[in-house]
Amino acid sequence: MSGEEIFFEQIRSAGCLSYLLGCAKDKVCVVIDPEIDKAADYVELAKFFGSAIHYAIDTHTHADHNSACKVLRERYGIKTVMHRATDAPYIDVSVEDGDEIKFGQQSLRVVYTPGHTQDAMCLLFKDRIFTGDTLLIGGCGRTDLPGGNAESQYQSLLKLKSLGDEIRVYPGHDYREAVSTLGEEKQKNARMLVSTQEEFVHFMTSRKPPLPRKIQEALEWNRTPIQGTQRGRGEGI
Amino acid sequence: MSGEEIFFEQIRSAGCLSYLLGCAKDKVCVVIDPEIDKAADYVELAKFFGSAIHYAIDTHTHADHNSACKVLRERYGIKTVMHRATDAPYIDVSVEDGDEIKFGQQSLRVVYTPGHTQDAMCLLFKDRIFTGDTLLIGGCGRTDLPGGNAESQYQSLLKLKSLGDEIRVYPGHDYREAVSTLGEEKQKNARMLVSTQEEFVHFMTSRKPPLPRKIQEALEWNRTPIQGTQRGRGEGI
Repeated sequence: MSGEEIFFEQIRSAGCLSYLLGCAKDKVCVVIDPEIDKAADYVELAKFFGSAIHYAIDTHTHADHNSACKVLRERYGIKTVMHRATDAPYIDVSVEDGDEIKFGQQSLRVVYTPGHTQDAMCLLFKDRIFTGDTLLIGGCGRTDLPGGNAESQYQSLLKLKSLGDEIRVYPGHDYREAVSTLGEEKQKNARMLVSTQEEFVHFMTSRKPPLPRKIQEALEWNRTPIQGTQRGRGEGI
Repeated sequence: MSGEEIFFEQIRSAGCLSYLLGCAKDKVCVVIDPEIDKAADYVELAKFFGSAIHYAIDTHTHADHNSACKVLRERYGIKTVMHRATDAPYIDVSVEDGDEIKFGQQSLRVVYTPGHTQDAMCLLFKDRIFTGDTLLIGGCGRTDLPGGNAESQYQSLLKLKSLGDEIRVYPGHDYREAVSTLGEEKQKNARMLVSTQEEFVHFMTSRKPPLPRKIQEALEWNRTPIQGTQRGRGEGI
C-alpha cells in the first residue's frame, strides 16, 4: 500500500514547486528543488514525518531563484545531488542517466533531459516523475537562457513521451491560469458544502494552522503610511 | 465582443495572484491585489497595453505578503482603493457593498464579504469575480488571523453561493496541488505536440521573452560555493 510506504508533500515557494519525498519505513527522505526561503521549513517538515533529509537534489541549475541546496548542506550536513553536467561547485553526489538515488527502501531513477539547461534531469519514482523545468503543465522550460539548447530539449521531450501515460507529472513551476467557476466551487469546495453555520464555524475554529511566516512584517507594512506622505483616509468613490 | 473591450492578465508573485484588468477603448486599467516585488512590472504591463493604471485595489488587508498599493500610490500617483472597513491609512477611495469602481467604460462591483478579514470584499466584473482570500479554488481564507470571523465568513460564502454558477472565480492564491499526467501532456501540451525537431526549434528560438528578474543573483548564488566550505565536486552515487 503506497500510502504507507512513502510520505510526500508538494511545497510552493516564490513561484517554485519543491517536493519532500520519504521512505516511511526507514524514516529518510529527499527534498527536490528546494528554495532558499524555505530551507528551515523542509527540515521541520521532515521532522514532522519523524524523518531526516538524506539528499537535497536540484533537477538543474535554476536561473530564476536561489537553490537551498547549499544552505541545507552547510547548516544541516545534507548531501547535495545534481547531474554531473552541472557547474555547481558544492555538489556531493554527481549522477547520470539511469542512476538510482536511494533513500531507505525507495529510490529515484535519473532521466537525463538536457535542453532547458545542460544539467537538467527528471526523476522517476514509480508512477510519478519530477520534471523540473523540462516539462511543465501545458508548457516546457525556455531554451534561451545560459546552457539552453532547443534541439536537446526536443530530444528530451521525445524521451519523456516514451514513458507511460499514467505517470503523474510534478513540475518545478505551475504557470497555468488559476481559475474555477462558482458552479464548480459550489459542487466541490468542502467549505462551500457545509450546510450549517454551526458546522462551518466549528470547522474553521477547531484547527490552528501556523501563522504566515511574514505576518508581522506584512501587517506592519500594509497598515502604515509611507512616512510623510499620508493624504488622509479614503474619500468614497 | 469581450476580447476587444478589455484586456486581462493574471500575474503570479510569491504565491499570490494579482490581476490587471483594463478598458481597451479608454486605455485605463486597474490592478487588483498587487504584490510589492512586482510594482514596476504592473506599470510596465499596463504600458504594454498602451494604458495606465487608474486604481490599485486591495481586496483586503493581506497578512501574508506586502501590498504594492502604497508604492504604486507614492511612486506613480495611482489611487488606492479598499473597503471602508480597512485600517490601512493610505487609501484614497473607500468603497462599500454595491459600489461600482469605474475605469473607462468598464466597472467592478463591490461585494462586501467579511470573514477572512473585516475589510474583505470581492469584485464582480461581468462573468468574472475576483475573490481575494474569501473564496479560493477548493478552499477559503482562514478566519483565525486578526479581523477574522468564521460566522461572517459563512454568511459571505452564502452570498457568493447566490451568484450565478457560470461566473469564473479568480482567487488571491492558488493552493491546489500542481499535477498532471504524461498522457494529458502528450495530448494537450503544445510543446509536446510539435511533430518535427525543426518546427520545435523554430518555435523555441523565434521569441525572446524577458530574462527572469533575478537571473544574475540566482545564477551567481547557484554556481558558487559558500565561502570556505567547498568540499570538492561530486563523487558519484
